[in-house]
Amino acid sequence: MDFEVSEKISIIVDMINEFVDKELIPLEPEFLTKNFSELLPVLREKQEMVKKMELWAPNFPVECGGMGLSLVEHGLVSEALGRSPLGHYVFWCQAPDAGNVEILHDHGTEAQKETWLKPLVQGKIRSCFSMTEVDMPGSNPVMLETTAVKEGDEYVINGHKWYTTAADGSQFAIVMAVTNPEAPAHLQASMIIVPTETPGFNLVRNIPVMGHEGDDYFSHGEILYQSCRVPLSNLLGREGQGFVMAQDRLGPGRIHHCMRWLGICSRAFDLMCHRANHRVISPDGKTLATRQTVQNWVAESAAEIEAARLMTLHAAWQIDNVGASKARDAISKIKFVVANTMNRVVDRALQVHGGLGMTDDTILAFFFSHERAARIYDGADEVHKTALARRILKSYQGKNIK
Amino acid sequence: MDFEVSEKISIIVDMINEFVDKELIPLEPEFLTKNFSELLPVLREKQEMVKKMELWAPNFPVECGGMGLSLVEHGLVSEALGRSPLGHYVFWCQAPDAGNVEILHDHGTEAQKETWLKPLVQGKIRSCFSMTEVDMPGSNPVMLETTAVKEGDEYVINGHKWYTTAADGSQFAIVMAVTNPEAPAHLQASMIIVPTETPGFNLVRNIPVMGHEGDDYFSHGEILYQSCRVPLSNLLGREGQGFVMAQDRLGPGRIHHCMRWLGICSRAFDLMCHRANHRVISPDGKTLATRQTVQNWVAESAAEIEAARLMTLHAAWQIDNVGASKARDAISKIKFVVANTMNRVVDRALQVHGGLGMTDDTILAFFFSHERAARIYDGADEVHKTALARRILKSYQGKNIK
Amino acid sequence: MDFEVSEKISIIVDMINEFVDKELIPLEPEFLTKNFSELLPVLREKQEMVKKMELWAPNFPVECGGMGLSLVEHGLVSEALGRSPLGHYVFWCQAPDAGNVEILHDHGTEAQKETWLKPLVQGKIRSCFSMTEVDMPGSNPVMLETTAVKEGDEYVINGHKWYTTAADGSQFAIVMAVTNPEAPAHLQASMIIVPTETPGFNLVRNIPVMGHEGDDYFSHGEILYQSCRVPLSNLLGREGQGFVMAQDRLGPGRIHHCMRWLGICSRAFDLMCHRANHRVISPDGKTLATRQTVQNWVAESAAEIEAARLMTLHAAWQIDNVGASKARDAISKIKFVVANTMNRVVDRALQVHGGLGMTDDTILAFFFSHERAARIYDGADEVHKTALARRILKSYQGKNIK
Amino acid sequence: MDFEVSEKISIIVDMINEFVDKELIPLEPEFLTKNFSELLPVLREKQEMVKKMELWAPNFPVECGGMGLSLVEHGLVSEALGRSPLGHYVFWCQAPDAGNVEILHDHGTEAQKETWLKPLVQGKIRSCFSMTEVDMPGSNPVMLETTAVKEGDEYVINGHKWYTTAADGSQFAIVMAVTNPEAPAHLQASMIIVPTETPGFNLVRNIPVMGHEGDDYFSHGEILYQSCRVPLSNLLGREGQGFVMAQDRLGPGRIHHCMRWLGICSRAFDLMCHRANHRVISPDGKTLATRQTVQNWVAESAAEIEAARLMTLHAAWQIDNVGASKARDAISKIKFVVANTMNRVVDRALQVHGGLGMTDDTILAFFFSHERAARIYDGADEVHKTALARRILKSYQGKNIK
Repeated sequence: MDFEVSEKISIIVDMINEFVDKELIPLEPEFLTKNFSELLPVLREKQEMVKKMELWAPNFPVECGGMGLSLVEHGLVSEALGRSPLGHYVFWCQAPDAGNVEILHDHGTEAQKETWLKPLVQGKIRSCFSMTEVDMPGSNPVMLETTAVKEGDEYVINGHKWYTTAADGSQFAIVMAVTNPEAPAHLQASMIIVPTETPGFNLVRNIPVMGHEGDDYFSHGEILYQSCRVPLSNLLGREGQGFVMAQDRLGPGRIHHCMRWLGICSRAFDLMCHRANHRVISPDGKTLATRQTVQNWVAESAAEIEAARLMTLHAAWQIDNVGASKARDAISKIKFVVANTMNRVVDRALQVHGGLGMTDDTILAFFFSHERAARIYDGADEVHKTALARRILKSYQGKNIK
Repeated sequence: MDFEVSEKISIIVDMINEFVDKELIPLEPEFLTKNFSELLPVLREKQEMVKKMELWAPNFPVECGGMGLSLVEHGLVSEALGRSPLGHYVFWCQAPDAGNVEILHDHGTEAQKETWLKPLVQGKIRSCFSMTEVDMPGSNPVMLETTAVKEGDEYVINGHKWYTTAADGSQFAIVMAVTNPEAPAHLQASMIIVPTETPGFNLVRNIPVMGHEGDDYFSHGEILYQSCRVPLSNLLGREGQGFVMAQDRLGPGRIHHCMRWLGICSRAFDLMCHRANHRVISPDGKTLATRQTVQNWVAESAAEIEAARLMTLHAAWQIDNVGASKARDAISKIKFVVANTMNRVVDRALQVHGGLGMTDDTILAFFFSHERAARIYDGADEVHKTALARRILKSYQGKNIK
Repeated sequence: MDFEVSEKISIIVDMINEFVDKELIPLEPEFLTKNFSELLPVLREKQEMVKKMELWAPNFPVECGGMGLSLVEHGLVSEALGRSPLGHYVFWCQAPDAGNVEILHDHGTEAQKETWLKPLVQGKIRSCFSMTEVDMPGSNPVMLETTAVKEGDEYVINGHKWYTTAADGSQFAIVMAVTNPEAPAHLQASMIIVPTETPGFNLVRNIPVMGHEGDDYFSHGEILYQSCRVPLSNLLGREGQGFVMAQDRLGPGRIHHCMRWLGICSRAFDLMCHRANHRVISPDGKTLATRQTVQNWVAESAAEIEAARLMTLHAAWQIDNVGASKARDAISKIKFVVANTMNRVVDRALQVHGGLGMTDDTILAFFFSHERAARIYDGADEVHKTALARRILKSYQGKNIK
Repeated sequence: MDFEVSEKISIIVDMINEFVDKELIPLEPEFLTKNFSELLPVLREKQEMVKKMELWAPNFPVECGGMGLSLVEHGLVSEALGRSPLGHYVFWCQAPDAGNVEILHDHGTEAQKETWLKPLVQGKIRSCFSMTEVDMPGSNPVMLETTAVKEGDEYVINGHKWYTTAADGSQFAIVMAVTNPEAPAHLQASMIIVPTETPGFNLVRNIPVMGHEGDDYFSHGEILYQSCRVPLSNLLGREGQGFVMAQDRLGPGRIHHCMRWLGICSRAFDLMCHRANHRVISPDGKTLATRQTVQNWVAESAAEIEAARLMTLHAAWQIDNVGASKARDAISKIKFVVANTMNRVVDRALQVHGGLGMTDDTILAFFFSHERAARIYDGADEVHKTALARRILKSYQGKNIK
């Protein structure tokens, strides 16, 4: 056992932390008050700086133009980036593009890679992943209603999707649709590339979330696919393999999210400690840091963050070493542990800020409201707990326990 | 002991529930997407309906034009109104006007009542209460920095306030300012009426809260008082009595808030149960209502709401019967119990809605983000717990316990 | 609404509190170190004092020799008695005798009343209630395996029971056994009186609980019924009505338990506050009472106890006024709320006592270990939550919620 | 980063698990019903088996006759041993002897080592550590009242200790006493070896804990030192260094405890899963494992145990690599995290067992009651949280956080 982080990654993480502090956090007041599209020019500048620092696309394969970090390494990078909502976007390892790159890299044809993967890795285009449906419980892929029917050399797609993150401004979507309705439940759907300019791809609205419609990358689209036709060659991988491919994508994707959430924890924790040290609560100059309740929150948060962090790095290490499939218990655990840890730490940090915590004068209110979703997407807490428990309980069958 | 609610109030509560369902809840989608000022015309219509139903200003004294309900009675009314964010405003018992009416009624001169109380009760003007300062911990009135210095027959007010709720659009503020800096800590400040059109009353901004500046009644102002001059006759009550008067106002005010939060609980609980019954999670038609985790949330929420409700009614009954001062333990308890119950119930209801809960397609995201403040204002959880515990622990001194 | 307690009950409760303090708490060190049977002589003396004070059997009907208190009234009495583990026994309103008295009173024949009820109310004999079986989940009466088969004018009982509280030293058991195996699930079992001296009634052992076998009244028996024959006239009520009669008994029985647990809360809370005030933690004489963590526990415990108390009194009031059947939601709520509140308050009190809390030098370790059972018997938390939630969710079907 | 466990330790842990299952767990029913001293002969046999397997004294230095495992390695061993209350004793790495061996090894003179260390490592004698006093808050060493006054070539010790674990049957105590009352607070006390047969060493009683006095190794002594005289040569290390030496001892000692608690977690978790799989709750054969509440407990327990385990191994790795002093934040965290995790997991396992969980028919009731102390000894939760938070908050002073 060795908990040491390599010198290489330590240096990279230090560089990123400094960059986030100097270049990104100062942009947050604008981020909180303007449309995201208004920030695009300045973010483009920051992205150029990142490219010059050779820190672009840290998790993408080297052959695609990324840094090719392992999952443990990218986890540590992702934690540093997650400290600001702008981090992943500027370093170009943001969801859902990161996952789409993986899919295109693993399953794309040469032509698909040339057309979509290359410009995507370079940051010239953006993409979205169109799976979730209004009436589809996240936990049950069998209930997908969007269909892609073959007509001649085309798929004709019909369906109603929502929560297609970042659809607004994307050049293409990877759409999950039923192509083989007669197949067994988990082999009915396929992934298909749909350019967003295709007729029949209708972005109905950006769903208002916590009072904000958002725009461009920071948005969640509701999309009506109405006889939307794309060539058969837009199929990704093999027909009916959509869920298998999605599953492969989700394991590492959950590590990305968890480490990003740990970055949020880290930022919120810093703000909490800073506020506690500076908020005077009595005329003799005593601060909130002297209150045992605040001390309890600091201690508990520190312990919970460390627990969540070690678990996530452990899960990443498992994926790196034995593959996502054997790491699935570890992945299920971190999905609910880290999301809840993050929500709790942000809640405490907000409380320590009092009225200020409710305002947009800090980033905490944004984290509190928007990152509440962490306990829901990519499998709600309840879904992961049940799936994990069933596997565990099954493993005890036939064992003789005293 | 008798837990029966009188027939009179039962009927009133039924009428209000029906009104909220039919007239106010349908306005919520507009409320969530438009500026509040755009809703004023339609809300004015609803207010006229309320007046015709003779349910206007339920908690205001009869002689002021209100219904003169007792605190227990108004608590039950407030619970029904709290089910929509528009309830209290339309029935004209909203904070901070409700509290200001009390102050004017109890401490105002005849002239003050004629000028400010009368039109305020009639709904012709609005008001705000300007106490909180950026560097003043809510728990420590001694640290007030705003001053009102006598010059001739005027007070000259200087200071920096924030979280002056509903300042935008108000005709006057009741300002808490230090008039007697040499007096003992709790006798330094006074309440002074400041018309918002007075030169030197500068509404710097509506503070952005959870991503929203808000406007008109739904806003929290940051105000700079810069040599703001008002006649000495604008003093409310006696000089140096500001905190005593504020304290009197806070007891019943906390009942109002708690019962409003119980209305939010009730609404969130309804939505949770409805969603659980309707959300299908498997192809055989099973709903979320069949999941034991959801059942646990329903059962726990039902129990916690009932507990919070009985405690709040008990505290109101104590105030009605023995006065706010003797009821202060009960008031401290409900302040943190009900706020936390409400936050928990809303959180569970949101989780049961999954992705939908994050959107503005239900009222839950609004409750989740904006009502997070309940654990902060009017004394944060921590402040009430400490104050309550100290009184309790003191009461044990000298007791012989085995 | 009126939360006032009548003067009559206030006086009774004061008398009981004083008696518990002066006569029973001083006996606890003996109670914790000796066999219960060794205490019987001194407890008999105390019982004579109670009879002289005319506070004997407070909840039993007047015509049986009790005080005939309403459930709300007895609740308040039970709270005072619950402060010591000896309270209910000495005032003769202990489980399971209290429930058995109710059953005999409501369903017994004149002969049964003469033989069993009369001496039981007078405290001349004790009884037990033999329902729970090793493999019977408390929540599922259908799975009862003990049978009572008619042979001639006798029932022949065979079965294996455990957790038959207070069997050791009892003169008779009320046994639940299947008499009508062909009937619908809830109509298969009957209650039968079995004198413990009957051949075939074999008390195998007193089950060791938390390291203690216990004895006499403070014990839980494991009983093997082996061809145990009693006359048909020992049937209580009608055949097949066992569960219905048990259900009737459980509602008020849960109130008794909950109020007893509130007495435990009260005692633990007193000890916690006393210890906090007296435990010096620094050379300058500061006590634990100055620590905010302890203050939080005091405040939270005070609030939780008040909540649990109001809910329990409310449920008792409902039973008194509309019957146990209509009060079942309220009863389900208090069963899990009060049990958990009690376990939490005792846990906090123990923690405030540090190492001392683990010892038998206070009553807390006894409460901590033995009263852990509260979350299990008479329906585990989980069973009540699920049952309650299902009724609630059903009540929402067909409702139009927005 | 590498989470792999070495093959050597994997094999050792497997051997130990098997030994615990086959040789120790079958002794538990006796352990729960008899005096510990009655088990000594059979335990002596098991210890001989351990010696033959060359697994004796795993954490003691090789030169003392132990296996010389690193802290990470011993942590993994300790986890396996902790599954039974008999594990550490039989493998001879039990507290407080393990700590006393360390002290004697690091600070003992050659004569002290010959007389006490050698037979102690060989298992020929036992020892105790006599620090805690009735009125001394664990967190404040300054408040020690036991004194050791030099008279000629002797120390004369007077004082009142309690919670001197395993004093009953020990051959010597290491006593913490004030030798230098004029020195700064942390330099007043010294450690002195006191043979238990010394006149003036009076074991007043074994403190009854959770209803049990215990005996021999499983006991906690109350000791009155009354003019107890020992030669000056019994001083351990240097005068006034008692606290420094105790502090050194506590870091690794907490790892030992935490890993032992993780063994308890592991055992309780196994029992919970086994019971869930086997407890039938409905006539159609459904088991508790199908209930989502139980599934939640399984999933949450699995995650919490993994978190606690990784944190503890991380802390052990830190001590192994940078020393206990630099690892103190990690040690503070695990002290409260692991103790609470263990208490929660045991509580859930007990609840899943229903009435059976309260009995001594499983080991759970023993864990539930006796291991409650984990949140108290070696620094209560509250003490560690406050100490940790203060260090963290201090580290933020002067930092510029945005």
